[in-house]
Amino acid sequence: MDTTTLARPAADGARTSGRQAYYDRIARHGMAPLWESLHSLVPREPRPQAVPAFWRYEEVRPLVMQAGELISAEEAVRRVLILENPGLPGRSSITSTLYAGLQLILPGEVAPSHRHTQSALRFIVEGKGAYTAVNGERTTMHPGDFIITPSWTWHDHGNPAVDEGGEPVVWLDGLDIPLVGHLDAGFAENYPEAVQPVSRAEGHSFATFGHNMAPVRHRAADPTSPIFSYPYDRSREALDRLFRQGELDAWDGVKLRYVNPATGGWPMPTMATFLQLLPAGFQGRTYRGTDATVFSVVEGQGTARIGGSTFQFGPRDTFVAPSWAPVQLAATQDAVLFSYSDRPVQDALHLHREHRM
Amino acid sequence: MDTTTLARPAADGARTSGRQAYYDRIARHGMAPLWESLHSLVPREPRPQAVPAFWRYEEVRPLVMQAGELISAEEAVRRVLILENPGLPGRSSITSTLYAGLQLILPGEVAPSHRHTQSALRFIVEGKGAYTAVNGERTTMHPGDFIITPSWTWHDHGNPAVDEGGEPVVWLDGLDIPLVGHLDAGFAENYPEAVQPVSRAEGHSFATFGHNMAPVRHRAADPTSPIFSYPYDRSREALDRLFRQGELDAWDGVKLRYVNPATGGWPMPTMATFLQLLPAGFQGRTYRGTDATVFSVVEGQGTARIGGSTFQFGPRDTFVAPSWAPVQLAATQDAVLFSYSDRPVQDALHLHREHRM
Amino acid sequence: MDTTTLARPAADGARTSGRQAYYDRIARHGMAPLWESLHSLVPREPRPQAVPAFWRYEEVRPLVMQAGELISAEEAVRRVLILENPGLPGRSSITSTLYAGLQLILPGEVAPSHRHTQSALRFIVEGKGAYTAVNGERTTMHPGDFIITPSWTWHDHGNPAVDEGGEPVVWLDGLDIPLVGHLDAGFAENYPEAVQPVSRAEGHSFATFGHNMAPVRHRAADPTSPIFSYPYDRSREALDRLFRQGELDAWDGVKLRYVNPATGGWPMPTMATFLQLLPAGFQGRTYRGTDATVFSVVEGQGTARIGGSTFQFGPRDTFVAPSWAPVQLAATQDAVLFSYSDRPVQDALHLHREHRM
Amino acid sequence: MDTTTLARPAADGARTSGRQAYYDRIARHGMAPLWESLHSLVPREPRPQAVPAFWRYEEVRPLVMQAGELISAEEAVRRVLILENPGLPGRSSITSTLYAGLQLILPGEVAPSHRHTQSALRFIVEGKGAYTAVNGERTTMHPGDFIITPSWTWHDHGNPAVDEGGEPVVWLDGLDIPLVGHLDAGFAENYPEAVQPVSRAEGHSFATFGHNMAPVRHRAADPTSPIFSYPYDRSREALDRLFRQGELDAWDGVKLRYVNPATGGWPMPTMATFLQLLPAGFQGRTYRGTDATVFSVVEGQGTARIGGSTFQFGPRDTFVAPSWAPVQLAATQDAVLFSYSDRPVQDALHLHREHRM
Repeated sequence: MDTTTLARPAADGARTSGRQAYYDRIARHGMAPLWESLHSLVPREPRPQAVPAFWRYEEVRPLVMQAGELISAEEAVRRVLILENPGLPGRSSITSTLYAGLQLILPGEVAPSHRHTQSALRFIVEGKGAYTAVNGERTTMHPGDFIITPSWTWHDHGNPAVDEGGEPVVWLDGLDIPLVGHLDAGFAENYPEAVQPVSRAEGHSFATFGHNMAPVRHRAADPTSPIFSYPYDRSREALDRLFRQGELDAWDGVKLRYVNPATGGWPMPTMATFLQLLPAGFQGRTYRGTDATVFSVVEGQGTARIGGSTFQFGPRDTFVAPSWAPVQLAATQDAVLFSYSDRPVQDALHLHREHRM
Repeated sequence: MDTTTLARPAADGARTSGRQAYYDRIARHGMAPLWESLHSLVPREPRPQAVPAFWRYEEVRPLVMQAGELISAEEAVRRVLILENPGLPGRSSITSTLYAGLQLILPGEVAPSHRHTQSALRFIVEGKGAYTAVNGERTTMHPGDFIITPSWTWHDHGNPAVDEGGEPVVWLDGLDIPLVGHLDAGFAENYPEAVQPVSRAEGHSFATFGHNMAPVRHRAADPTSPIFSYPYDRSREALDRLFRQGELDAWDGVKLRYVNPATGGWPMPTMATFLQLLPAGFQGRTYRGTDATVFSVVEGQGTARIGGSTFQFGPRDTFVAPSWAPVQLAATQDAVLFSYSDRPVQDALHLHREHRM
Repeated sequence: MDTTTLARPAADGARTSGRQAYYDRIARHGMAPLWESLHSLVPREPRPQAVPAFWRYEEVRPLVMQAGELISAEEAVRRVLILENPGLPGRSSITSTLYAGLQLILPGEVAPSHRHTQSALRFIVEGKGAYTAVNGERTTMHPGDFIITPSWTWHDHGNPAVDEGGEPVVWLDGLDIPLVGHLDAGFAENYPEAVQPVSRAEGHSFATFGHNMAPVRHRAADPTSPIFSYPYDRSREALDRLFRQGELDAWDGVKLRYVNPATGGWPMPTMATFLQLLPAGFQGRTYRGTDATVFSVVEGQGTARIGGSTFQFGPRDTFVAPSWAPVQLAATQDAVLFSYSDRPVQDALHLHREHRM
Repeated sequence: MDTTTLARPAADGARTSGRQAYYDRIARHGMAPLWESLHSLVPREPRPQAVPAFWRYEEVRPLVMQAGELISAEEAVRRVLILENPGLPGRSSITSTLYAGLQLILPGEVAPSHRHTQSALRFIVEGKGAYTAVNGERTTMHPGDFIITPSWTWHDHGNPAVDEGGEPVVWLDGLDIPLVGHLDAGFAENYPEAVQPVSRAEGHSFATFGHNMAPVRHRAADPTSPIFSYPYDRSREALDRLFRQGELDAWDGVKLRYVNPATGGWPMPTMATFLQLLPAGFQGRTYRGTDATVFSVVEGQGTARIGGSTFQFGPRDTFVAPSWAPVQLAATQDAVLFSYSDRPVQDALHLHREHRM
């Protein structure tokens, strides 16, 4: 049998009471024997506690809306239901390093302004017309838009009143909360007012950086993209054109990563984001990677096989693939999936591996 | 009087015949006295031989068209009139490091495929419908488009026949020929056929890299932008939106640099490109920089004061500002200027300086 | 009381049984209310579970030597006593992201060859003459030497027999085991033989990269330093010269970071290492940083005030400062401290903060 | 005959008087026909005007010393004999982009302080005890030392009086004067005093950066190495150890490049420097590269075949290999060669090519 351990395990007979007495003695000095735990500390391959999991939107949605009745936006600061991985109970994590939640903002509400070390992404799941404000500029939400609130920038969200056309808006919140917590490096503070002042017209960042041009003297100093909203219609169009031009990867379908135009790199230092098109009839091959990944379905129907689990997905569903679990995607209707992972962290530390079978 | 020399000049009397005899003697050993030339070799500030110069399109155009009668595209390989700086006679240079020319391609013609170390840009001045092919992909030209042929990539140009809608097309060619020549680092070769095979649909590069997204595993290896055509309508729109949002620089008007989306840097390793809007009535302040710059007027009317010269410019005119010459731009009608310089070289070598007065 | 929380806590009365019923219901769908935990997930400032801790070598050494009697090197693979932070029981961690242990190798022993994703550093505490082999090259250990075994490189350790001059050697092992575990990104495997073949002479890497020179065509591809041993005598000399030249930082004494000469950056992608001299009489000012730091004393005597704890340190002692805990160092005799932290990770993710009071 | 031209040359008969009249007409508008010069502007491979050349020190030295009688250091500012490439007459250049000169400083003299955009290297050829001061720190010269005066830093040179042990010192000056001139980007100014004040002890920079360590918070901002003197004994030792360990390249012997320890890159942004050992009996294979290279012999005897020329070299001789000329090196006694080229420029612009035959 393959024990899949690195350490050559100690002989059974050796674990005498004398050895245990020694372990107790060193424990009193804040020490422990490596040889008893080497196999689990330095495993042959990743053994995540996180498991494959799936949240069906039609089941989840009523609960999200119920939160809108139960608690006010002001009381909640953020009215969010955390999607907690069943393998990580009590840890408010969807993967070991990442957090996911479904946030609801009702017409006429404001989620007050604050900032924190944690980077955040918002992927709009349902509803339109709400806004996020970042650094004095607002952007209006539409389903499928990918919006960033960079580390340590003031941000608040708002939704027009019903009589101004407001409707309930739900988005997927993605943050690096568990990672920043593991690093013990998080700071946060509230803005003195509920809403930060608007100092730039909507679209200013995109006009400045979104057209493959930039201010003459601009040098990238901030690690996060100066574009903080990537509209769905443009991203969708890129996938569509590439599909019509014959691009189709056997594992991924047509898949692009979002880019920080100031660097060509990831849009945030801790989270990668992707959008992919699986054309109707697509039967993807199996792959796995060390970056556990959260998926949000935008359009279409299909199947995700992750580890030993199989999920039938449809619009607005969320699911998660743990590190190194085999993943196989298929579509019965043209499907579009948004996803995010901690790949920039693994890249920066030269730890990322993937295997395409 | 300011001698503007670094060296403290040798006393007149010292230049005796004895000293000259010494200079003659060392000359026979391949040597020369630094102290006689230090002041010119290491000047207090740049003293370019290039001068401000201007090419009025209405005067130049008939000569360009005459070239079309005089010489076939095939005979010429490239039917181009070099814009030669009057201060650099016989050097085929518009600045010390850069080349500019006006290239004409007539309906039904082909400029055969070759490649060279020199990077090239094409800025479309007049006519539409011709194409440039780079690395198996064609892009169709429209006035104001900025197109790249990267270093050492096969490229050819073609124009449909008249009965297929072809019309004469003129573009500004910008190359780093004098720089590569100074470095003695140029190579070139012809493609075995006149036209390289087309292997990708038109727009493929733009769909892949033009929407602030990129292939999942793409890493920038090539120093040149993977987008090889930057359409004018999008660049113009960015300027327009920023102007309407109140961006106006006192020296530049609204000015953006073109960007390599894979790096956030310049689109080519040796040439920077810019597009700027001078709104009607704009009276720019004076600036100067060490990167001599070539301008091509797309729209509008205005005045360029460069060193002691004043040029009234209109659409399709070309002019050049030498290194460190004071430049002041003004517009009587909304004007759009394209420009290019060797700023990436000066940046890479930490030599660029500018002064905004 | 200052609650130092970000969230405005929900009113006591609001936590009705109805709300709890809702929480139970969403829990069955893998969800939890963010508003109940926001204050702890996104704290105002780091609240590490790790605490200041200290291991006095004279108390620890007998236990280390006893391990040499209790278990053979072969049986143990690595005979190491883990220094476990009392605030992180059962987690084999000295800080949230880092591991530390004291490893003993007796004369005539071999610690067999393996490799793993985790990066490791060895800081020699006691004894000399043992070796580490990395990528076919051995380096001999002396107290104070800092040695690297890069991620995913084969490495083994050995010690000559007593009659060949072997003596017990103890070093501090520093690894990024908890971080790689958090990222679920670790792989490991054993070498088919106990000892890897030697293919390069001792000192080859240092001769190639240690003298501010490098092979003509070398480009840094590996994130880890090509020098894998930094001898103490050279590092100590640098500190000494700078001290004699008047360099003395009010917080740090004379402190240098070890450098990867191929990049100028940190020697490993996940761990920073430092060496600092506190001259006799030095009374450092207080600082704190988000990178929890492990210290090993090489020479001298002094005091470390960390958070509310005060440690009197002497040669070969180990202590740890948690994230954001105030640290104040003083010396009664000239003292030299080696230290390591996860600063490269925090830098790469733009999370590092420090405050010098 | 192979014309090795890119352009297909125009038919002889076509160069009619009519065509010439056209050329005259466009010349009056500042234009010229590309098709007449394309073959020379865009050559198939580099065709440098520079030629292989050699300066035998025993012939040159008397002339250098004679300059010491003819002109005072103060009068000269810099008493240097330019080594001018015979293929580039009147251009004060040893290659198209680089300058070389032999500078003499006599006991008791001072070369007054100034600064300029041009980067400079000094390679000590004969004599010791003189100093260069850079940024407030002096370094004492010994034969074989490689010393940098970075762009735009104040620098002066001095030599103790004879009764303080001063002796004539000669070094090879290497500068990027022609390159900076070509870019029209040079600035210069004199320091108000002959000698800048000394603010740091000799050896400070080396103690800080020379031992594979660096100040804790140092980030490379300056493109030039913070070590401004690379002593010969250490560089020589590295070559020697590698040779004894069996490193010997069939083209280069044992060759290392000098490194900026803050970046791992070249020590200056415009000039690469190298030191190589050719053991007695070495018969190198032929190579060529696009970076024309200047060599200075430190030790030993040998032969350099460059293009069609053969040079027998000995200590202190200087020679130059033009771009793309085949080079073959051999040694009859253990020889050490210092060399420099513009490779960092060609690298930054992605223009460098080499071919090892």
